[in-house]
Amino acid sequence: MLSKNELKYIQSLCQKKQRQAEGLFIAEGTKLAEELLKSHFRIRKIYATANWVPPITPKEPVVTITEAELVRISGLQTPNKVLIIAEQSLKIPKPVLTKGLTLLLDGIQDPGNLGTLIRIADWFGINQVIAGEHTAELYNPKVIQSTMGSFIRVQVTYQPLEEVLLTCKLPVYGALLKGENVNKLMPVRDGLLIIGNESKGIRNELLSYITHPVTIPRIGGAESLNAGVAGGIILSRMIGG
Amino acid sequence: MLSKNELKYIQSLCQKKQRQAEGLFIAEGTKLAEELLKSHFRIRKIYATANWVPPITPKEPVVTITEAELVRISGLQTPNKVLIIAEQSLKIPKPVLTKGLTLLLDGIQDPGNLGTLIRIADWFGINQVIAGEHTAELYNPKVIQSTMGSFIRVQVTYQPLEEVLLTCKLPVYGALLKGENVNKLMPVRDGLLIIGNESKGIRNELLSYITHPVTIPRIGGAESLNAGVAGGIILSRMIGG
Repeated sequence: MLSKNELKYIQSLCQKKQRQAEGLFIAEGTKLAEELLKSHFRIRKIYATANWVPPITPKEPVVTITEAELVRISGLQTPNKVLIIAEQSLKIPKPVLTKGLTLLLDGIQDPGNLGTLIRIADWFGINQVIAGEHTAELYNPKVIQSTMGSFIRVQVTYQPLEEVLLTCKLPVYGALLKGENVNKLMPVRDGLLIIGNESKGIRNELLSYITHPVTIPRIGGAESLNAGVAGGIILSRMIGG
Repeated sequence: MLSKNELKYIQSLCQKKQRQAEGLFIAEGTKLAEELLKSHFRIRKIYATANWVPPITPKEPVVTITEAELVRISGLQTPNKVLIIAEQSLKIPKPVLTKGLTLLLDGIQDPGNLGTLIRIADWFGINQVIAGEHTAELYNPKVIQSTMGSFIRVQVTYQPLEEVLLTCKLPVYGALLKGENVNKLMPVRDGLLIIGNESKGIRNELLSYITHPVTIPRIGGAESLNAGVAGGIILSRMIGG
């Protein structure tokens, strides 16, 4: 049973301001719950319907709620048995920029795109993502859900990208209109890939840092590709193999 | 100025049932409006704020509305000057399955994913998409918006995929766990690519039709890739060049 205050409190965590003040975030659904419970994240509270079977016995008490109550606190179109409130991870190690691959996001504003890009990084074994200004907030529930759990494995830090690029000596890849055909790319062991904003692309201020412009050849009439899709296509070639 | 009835009518078109009964759909924003006005689609009505500058003089009268009214009829988080009601295109030519590339969607349920896949097809010059059962409806406003106008150039038909596959003699590509490494794919001039459902993948019933299973090598911890991203990566290699 959910008290009125509890309901209000959970709903308040849908606002960034409140999430940051509390240092908490919401994750939903059986799959994400399973990953979270097995992760290093600290769980604050678990709300679940009676038919939820925890994958491991959680240390935290489970508040059993009705389907109707879950619908009221859920941000999903199809609520899925469980909603978890967990603590934001504040001790994220500083990214290592001397080797390996790192994804730089220059203002990815759509939460779904940010989540998808974190999931892509995770798929390709890239565990560092640096989000520049105007990038959506990691703990936005839509970001968390669309990572499908990858936010647990990928370290996402927020930093001005100019600072990162100024000091980093690795090759810098970026999708530009006139670059090397992505199909000709050789696998890259160490480097950065910049993905630009959904409508404006990579900011002019960053262009001079790009040592390896890459182009996905266009044949038809679409003006652009979705940021996540473009990122996936380029990373797939950078990983190669 | 918007009458109460008009407001209700526009809002009713957010429901599939009503859209189908009326044979209409909604498209929003300056970019989409421009593409629609220049296309073969028949426009029924244009609602725009006073600051909208039509790219060409529309034959249809423009109803000038206030920002506040646009917010009330818009499905976008950030309404963008114009909302168009247009007629669904019912005379879509039957797909040609003797040559070229065709995208088959086996139950893509998320409207955003469907729109993204249509946009990818358009980018790569593929103008035929066949949507199987349980695929989202093309004229869902979220699909239309996320195609970014590509629905105008790509012919999307709805057909049971078994029927299509039974008669088609082209090679059939599909993303499976054990297939050829996508990086080793040679460009494909004629063929079909099946993209499976977001959580269940390609249905068992279709597996025996796949002549060329393809795998995107996984290195990290993510269990899967977003359907649009996977489609983009595979198509990018099938197109090659």
